[in-house]
Amino acid sequence: MVNTMELMGIVISLLAFAYAGWLYLWVKKQPQENTTIERISILIQEGARAFLGRQYKLLFSFAVVVAFVVFVLLPKPIWQGVSIQNVFMALSYAAGTLFSAFAGKIGIEVATIANGRCAYAARDGIKPAFMTGFRGGAVMGMAVVGACNLGVCLVYMLLADPQAVLCFSFGASSLALFAKVGGGIFTKTADITADLTGKVELGIPEDDPRNPAVIADNVGDNVGDVAGMGADLFDSNVASLAAAIVIAANLDRMSEFKLNVATVFCYAGLGLLASILGVMTARIGKNGNPTKALNSSTYVTTGIYALLTGIATVIFGFRFEIWAACVLGLLVGVIIGVTTDYFTDDSKKPVHNVAHASNTGPAFTILSGISYGFLSTMPAMIGTGISTLISYRLCQNIDPAFSSEYALFGISMAAVGMLSIVGMIVSNDAYGPIVDNARGLAEMGSLGDTVLEITDELDSAGNTVKAVTKGFSISAAGLTVIALLGTFMSEVNSAAAELSLPLVTGFDVMDPLVFFGMLTGAAIPAVFSAMLMLGVDRNAQRMVAEIHRQFREIAGLKEGKGDPDYKRCIEIAADGAIRELIPAGAVAIISTIIVGFIGGVPAIAGFLVGNIVSGLLLALFMSNAGGLWDNSKKYVEAGNEGGKGSEAHKAAVVGDTVGDPFKDTAGPSINTQITVVSLIASLLSTLFLTFSLFG
Amino acid sequence: MVNTMELMGIVISLLAFAYAGWLYLWVKKQPQENTTIERISILIQEGARAFLGRQYKLLFSFAVVVAFVVFVLLPKPIWQGVSIQNVFMALSYAAGTLFSAFAGKIGIEVATIANGRCAYAARDGIKPAFMTGFRGGAVMGMAVVGACNLGVCLVYMLLADPQAVLCFSFGASSLALFAKVGGGIFTKTADITADLTGKVELGIPEDDPRNPAVIADNVGDNVGDVAGMGADLFDSNVASLAAAIVIAANLDRMSEFKLNVATVFCYAGLGLLASILGVMTARIGKNGNPTKALNSSTYVTTGIYALLTGIATVIFGFRFEIWAACVLGLLVGVIIGVTTDYFTDDSKKPVHNVAHASNTGPAFTILSGISYGFLSTMPAMIGTGISTLISYRLCQNIDPAFSSEYALFGISMAAVGMLSIVGMIVSNDAYGPIVDNARGLAEMGSLGDTVLEITDELDSAGNTVKAVTKGFSISAAGLTVIALLGTFMSEVNSAAAELSLPLVTGFDVMDPLVFFGMLTGAAIPAVFSAMLMLGVDRNAQRMVAEIHRQFREIAGLKEGKGDPDYKRCIEIAADGAIRELIPAGAVAIISTIIVGFIGGVPAIAGFLVGNIVSGLLLALFMSNAGGLWDNSKKYVEAGNEGGKGSEAHKAAVVGDTVGDPFKDTAGPSINTQITVVSLIASLLSTLFLTFSLFG
Repeated sequence: MVNTMELMGIVISLLAFAYAGWLYLWVKKQPQENTTIERISILIQEGARAFLGRQYKLLFSFAVVVAFVVFVLLPKPIWQGVSIQNVFMALSYAAGTLFSAFAGKIGIEVATIANGRCAYAARDGIKPAFMTGFRGGAVMGMAVVGACNLGVCLVYMLLADPQAVLCFSFGASSLALFAKVGGGIFTKTADITADLTGKVELGIPEDDPRNPAVIADNVGDNVGDVAGMGADLFDSNVASLAAAIVIAANLDRMSEFKLNVATVFCYAGLGLLASILGVMTARIGKNGNPTKALNSSTYVTTGIYALLTGIATVIFGFRFEIWAACVLGLLVGVIIGVTTDYFTDDSKKPVHNVAHASNTGPAFTILSGISYGFLSTMPAMIGTGISTLISYRLCQNIDPAFSSEYALFGISMAAVGMLSIVGMIVSNDAYGPIVDNARGLAEMGSLGDTVLEITDELDSAGNTVKAVTKGFSISAAGLTVIALLGTFMSEVNSAAAELSLPLVTGFDVMDPLVFFGMLTGAAIPAVFSAMLMLGVDRNAQRMVAEIHRQFREIAGLKEGKGDPDYKRCIEIAADGAIRELIPAGAVAIISTIIVGFIGGVPAIAGFLVGNIVSGLLLALFMSNAGGLWDNSKKYVEAGNEGGKGSEAHKAAVVGDTVGDPFKDTAGPSINTQITVVSLIASLLSTLFLTFSLFG
Repeated sequence: MVNTMELMGIVISLLAFAYAGWLYLWVKKQPQENTTIERISILIQEGARAFLGRQYKLLFSFAVVVAFVVFVLLPKPIWQGVSIQNVFMALSYAAGTLFSAFAGKIGIEVATIANGRCAYAARDGIKPAFMTGFRGGAVMGMAVVGACNLGVCLVYMLLADPQAVLCFSFGASSLALFAKVGGGIFTKTADITADLTGKVELGIPEDDPRNPAVIADNVGDNVGDVAGMGADLFDSNVASLAAAIVIAANLDRMSEFKLNVATVFCYAGLGLLASILGVMTARIGKNGNPTKALNSSTYVTTGIYALLTGIATVIFGFRFEIWAACVLGLLVGVIIGVTTDYFTDDSKKPVHNVAHASNTGPAFTILSGISYGFLSTMPAMIGTGISTLISYRLCQNIDPAFSSEYALFGISMAAVGMLSIVGMIVSNDAYGPIVDNARGLAEMGSLGDTVLEITDELDSAGNTVKAVTKGFSISAAGLTVIALLGTFMSEVNSAAAELSLPLVTGFDVMDPLVFFGMLTGAAIPAVFSAMLMLGVDRNAQRMVAEIHRQFREIAGLKEGKGDPDYKRCIEIAADGAIRELIPAGAVAIISTIIVGFIGGVPAIAGFLVGNIVSGLLLALFMSNAGGLWDNSKKYVEAGNEGGKGSEAHKAAVVGDTVGDPFKDTAGPSINTQITVVSLIASLLSTLFLTFSLFG
């Protein structure tokens, strides 16, 4: 049965790739005949390629080192005897990085050709423009989930070893750490620098081609929001599958019911199929509402998924409890998304109150934004808690002999369910930066007011949808790492059984080792995001210096006669981003290892719990506060509270600038940080069980 | 032995009161002959009294209701039979509120007479001015710890029931919730309003007596920093004793070693004695350094405490493991204080970097301040974790039959140790607002530049010492609530034994009920502080309206001819503060009760853990970031980065305004919130054990 499901997964993945190929060709076929747009598009595309080249080159060295460490340590340290398994583990790790990198590359390629075509299509109305933007984003969605499912199926089919899937997932996570964090620092570095040197120092307009940072800024929007976000969701998706497969494989071995792994593969494949169908059915009327179109395709996907998995459960004789946990996860995800949206929606009270508070000065913009950001963590924290609770209860009676294992499997399947429609989510998310760029290009290409109105409407729909998917993806990551906690225990017990040590039945919060780990783990996301934000600051200072150099040394640049060195700016942003990322990533990784060797398995369990709890809280707070400030600024710019140029507007701009690294650098990177730490803990569990100071 | 120690505690408490009385008379005897200072001093004193009157009146109604609820529910619901115990519990609760209120009242009385005398004494040099300020603060220190020890000893002596001590502690906590949170909202409301209406709208200088909010502002400094902070530390101190006594009393009943409760009373008494001796030895040379004088008296107290408790341990045959845990707690507290100080000290990198970032605008002041605030949580989080770990290990082998109980007792004694020198800490803390006021009074009374220089130096010493004690007191509260977690389990097991239910051995983080509780509990401090900050905002708006009314209706006010209605402003600030506090307090209390009735004992245990972890993190973050912004502004005002009036200064002022409610309203109030929730959980443990949906 497992093989059948893996084959099905592979077939659906290939189908997704084929569909992505068709969408890509469709987008490419759309006309784009404006020369200004053409020229700027190419500059952006070259810039994005330069960044990816730079990033992948650095990542390659990193991956080689980590692959070697994986080879040395896993599944068993080579000093206990070299085995072919060690090679497989290293290869699985490498495959994880490659598949994720591949999906990111495809997304960037299509996004940078779709933006200009979307702008041009807007001359013919909202319908063709929407379809170009949406289908451009969908290429990324299909590529991400296709690559994820294909990779997991192939690794498990060839090696039949859950730990190899964990290694694959670790590969994807380490790439995501670079892509998301690096991309996040890159984009905000370029954004801030372009504003400072262009608008503030020289008094030239935004997006003026004389500013050497301007292409880096546009590139940043693409690589941060398209490639970075894609890698992040690739990472969460593959981690949720890895967690579920590890627990399911254990259950297949021990329990009476043998279809657990088969269930995981089947549901994951059907999630992708549902996303394909959802993308196919996305339509907009001639004068239709793009927000409605995006949301309704999400709901269609959700419905199709519940139906398909229900039918599969009947046909293949899966357990309905598991199906229920899976669908519950998906529903809770949608509810969290919608509830969290309240705090960032520009038609709701929080955005209005923050805009109103801005009248009294920037301090009140910040204070009220932070307050609502804190309040906004509530629905997702409680929602995640409740879905953990219910999915646990649902599944614990499947086999009374393994009730706690099935309960954990239930949680992991709720995470799989929450992430099942990730193909649709990524499509919607990637749509955002494409239509955002399209708006800018339409302005620069002087396509006229009607076109601008249309691209504005498309852009605003992108922002609304993004707010919904953001709460969703943070909660999904949270649920995934809770499932990974189960994986960690499962791995510890496999190791304990092998070493004839007593099995671990749980981690008591009253155990001071657990508590020590918890307090330390809770501090990590705070320290990690502080380092990223300080990194953006330092990196921006380096880039400002480079721009000053160019204006000094390139003759006629200020007058528009000399050519600015765009690539050098892009290189600085990229170099600096990856340099700033290394210490932050290192703190997360090294502190995990230190805590593990000090306090052993209980301390690491506490560390993971503390990390999850504070990580979820801070990620939600920072993402939502950032989105809220962004929308408050837009709300003021739309003419409220005095409109553009008023005191309220100046204050709202301060809020937006604070919110930028909150929502685009630190907040979403915490997801990846939590996942990486959880995977390291699982992979090194044998070591922590064997050597530790107090454990 | 317990009786001897209680008697000793009572004697030392009375000694502390006697000493406080002597100090009070000494301060009162100091000359103050400047009529302007006299007039303003009296206005501040009347204002503070008006606020306390208002606060205590409202608190009285609240306390009556809660006392009735305590009577109905504790130790057993009266529908299971009324007993005299129920009356005792209600009386213990009432005593807790009264003792705490009494200490607050004394502190305010002396602080508002010491400020003017300190300013006047500065004409004769730094020595008499320092002594006046310090001894004024010490009255509060002695009163707080004397009242705390006296109350706990009396309650336990009369009732010999640990649960009565918990009720006493709950009384103190509920008062602290009003005093700290209410005082915090009051002071920031008045501060912001005075600045907005005075400096911004009317263009009159700070502290101009025509501004109806100006006395409220001065009163706020006193009631927030003297009375509020005193109530907060009263609460932590009594909670740490209550936690230790509950665990110790259980051990005295079961274990071979019977001197546990005696140890608690003895060490607590000696802590107060050490503080008395420390205050007595505080001296400053003729041209001495006040910071050195304050710090050295803290170190003297620490040394005396370690010595006295060591000697007592030998004489009375206590266990050295417990002594070691206690001294370890104290040492870690001092180390945390000093390390955290790095992030707020104006001679260190963080303050300089934030000031430098302010050159680029307020967004960068905020971003860098938040980043360093996040980083600053690390030492205290890890330090608290390590002291938990070591004190647990130290004490778990005292009696192998009760190793986990002794281990928890070790943690609770580390908390007692950390809080042992609280008399000294409160003295140093209360010194701050006294010399701060003295500086303002010296300026208004035109005492000349030499006096201003001296009061400036005294004020700066107050700020430095305050930064150290703040990290210290948050960590102490953290360790106390960890000990209260032990108390909770102990209470649950007493109830379980009585109901013939299986005993609880721990709370597994893999239990979804625990996890659900943890996620919910972690969200509470965020929601609570958000509500307080939004409360300050709304309350300030009400007060601004009142000031506009006064300027409209009182003839000649603007010209300095009419008398502003200071008292009305104070009433509005006080009323509003308490009104805004009720929803926030209610969220904390009601969510505890809901989670308890949904998930029972495991969910509540998780709730407490999540609450502690996220509460500690946020309290440290907010307090330290606030202190950092405050000092960055002062650093710029001292002439750095362009000095007063520069762009950097404007940005630094924004940072300071954001930091004000961070460090004086929300941050420190989280301490109290955590304690209140922990005490409610312990007191209602029987109910949660008996009725719950999932538990």
